[in-house]
Amino acid sequence: MEGDADTRRVWVIGIGAGDPAWMTLAAVRALETVDVVFVFQKGDDDELALARRSLLPEGVREVVIEDPPRGRGAAAVAAWRARRVALVQEAVAAEAGEAAFLAWGDPSLYDGLIDVLREAGLGVRVVPGISAVSALCAQFGIPLNRVGGSVLITSGRRLVAEGWPTGVGDVVVMLDADLTFKRFPEAEIYWGAYLGTPDELLLSGVVAEVSDEIERVRSEARRRKGWMFDTYLLRRAAPG
Amino acid sequence: MEGDADTRRVWVIGIGAGDPAWMTLAAVRALETVDVVFVFQKGDDDELALARRSLLPEGVREVVIEDPPRGRGAAAVAAWRARRVALVQEAVAAEAGEAAFLAWGDPSLYDGLIDVLREAGLGVRVVPGISAVSALCAQFGIPLNRVGGSVLITSGRRLVAEGWPTGVGDVVVMLDADLTFKRFPEAEIYWGAYLGTPDELLLSGVVAEVSDEIERVRSEARRRKGWMFDTYLLRRAAPG
Repeated sequence: MEGDADTRRVWVIGIGAGDPAWMTLAAVRALETVDVVFVFQKGDDDELALARRSLLPEGVREVVIEDPPRGRGAAAVAAWRARRVALVQEAVAAEAGEAAFLAWGDPSLYDGLIDVLREAGLGVRVVPGISAVSALCAQFGIPLNRVGGSVLITSGRRLVAEGWPTGVGDVVVMLDADLTFKRFPEAEIYWGAYLGTPDELLLSGVVAEVSDEIERVRSEARRRKGWMFDTYLLRRAAPG
Repeated sequence: MEGDADTRRVWVIGIGAGDPAWMTLAAVRALETVDVVFVFQKGDDDELALARRSLLPEGVREVVIEDPPRGRGAAAVAAWRARRVALVQEAVAAEAGEAAFLAWGDPSLYDGLIDVLREAGLGVRVVPGISAVSALCAQFGIPLNRVGGSVLITSGRRLVAEGWPTGVGDVVVMLDADLTFKRFPEAEIYWGAYLGTPDELLLSGVVAEVSDEIERVRSEARRRKGWMFDTYLLRRAAPG
C-alpha cells in the first residue's frame, strides 16, 4: 500500500497529548529502533521542545525543522504547506537510517503532518497516540458520547460557520482562539488546557456560568507561559 | 470532583484497540497497582477474554461479571443498564483493595462503562486508551480529518436517521451491523476489523467498487471467528 519499494518510509509516532506516561509501548519501541527524529518547531515552543526531547532514548539524533511562518488566507496557507513539504524533503534526504517524525497527541487528528509527508513522497508507518480528545475526557472522567449518540469534532471557525448540527449532542472544538463556546450559553462545557502536564487546567460547568472564568484563566495562563493549547467539549441536552 | 471522601474510587483503564503494544505506560503502571480487575464478559467473547487476560500482571485477580443479555427497545435497554449497575455494585462490594475495570480502546468512546460505574455510586480515575478511531487511521496511514475540516463520529443507525450532515467531510461509523456504508456509494471508505490483532482486516476504496468485497470478507470472518468488531471512515469530497 505504500507505493513501490523505492519509496522511503518514515515513522510517524504519536507521543500522546501531554503526559509522558501516555506514550504507548509501541511508541517507546519504535523510538528505540530509529536513528534520527525530525521535529517541526515554532520559534515559541521551547517548553514543548524540551518536553519532547525528554522522551527520546539516548543516542537518537534530533533534527529540528524550523516551522515556516504561516500567513492568513488560502494562498498563504498553500505556500506554507509547500514550504513545509520542501523542508521535509531536504531534511530527510540529508539523513540516512531509520527516521521518525513525532506528533503530540494522535497524528491522525488535526495535525497535518501525515499529509505533508505524503506530499513529500514518503511512505508512512503510523503509531497511534492518545489524542487530546481522549485525554480531555479521561481527566474529567466522562464519556465523550452519550449512549448511542454522535460526536462532532470540529474547529471554532467551522462551528461558527456551520452552526451546531441537528441530532448531535456533543461537539469537541479544537484549535479555537476565539472563545467560540460563548455562543452557546446553555451548553455544558468541559474545558482543558495543557492536558496531562503539571500546568494542566480543567474547568467545567454551564457556559453562561463559567465562560468568564475560562476566559480569565485562559488569558492569564497564555500570558504566563507564552503559549496556549486547549480543547473543549460542549454538551447539549441529548437529542431525541 | 469525585464527591465526598467516602466514595469508593476505581480505575477505568483503556487497554487500546487490539494491539497489546497500544497499551500506554500509564495503563501498565496502573495495572501494577491494582489488586483486582473486573471485566464484563459476554458469553461469546472467549477470544477477547484471553487476549485481555494476557495483559494482566501476575498476581492480579480477575473477576468476571457476566454481562446480562440485552433486549431490543428503550425499556429493555434501561433494564439491562440497571442490571449492569446492580452487578457492578455487588461485585465491587465483595472485593477490598485497589480495583480496576478494563475497557478495550478508549473508555470515553462508545463504551458505556463510565456511566455504569457512576450510576453505581463509584468515583472513577480514567486512563485514556488508543481508540478504534485512532487505530483505524494509523493502520491506513491516513489523517482522520482534512485540514481544518470536521469529523462526525456516529453509529450506523444515527447516520441512517439523520443523514450525512452538511459541511462534514468525514464520518466515522462505530457499531454498525447493517452495512450502512452501502447508502453512500460515491464516498471513499476505509474499513477495518479486528484492528491491531493478527486477524486484522483492512479494505478501502470507493464504496461502489469495494462494498461487495467488504460484505463478503466481513461475513466470512464473522462466521469463522464467531464475532466481529469493525469500524470505518467514510470520506466525501471536501466541503467548501
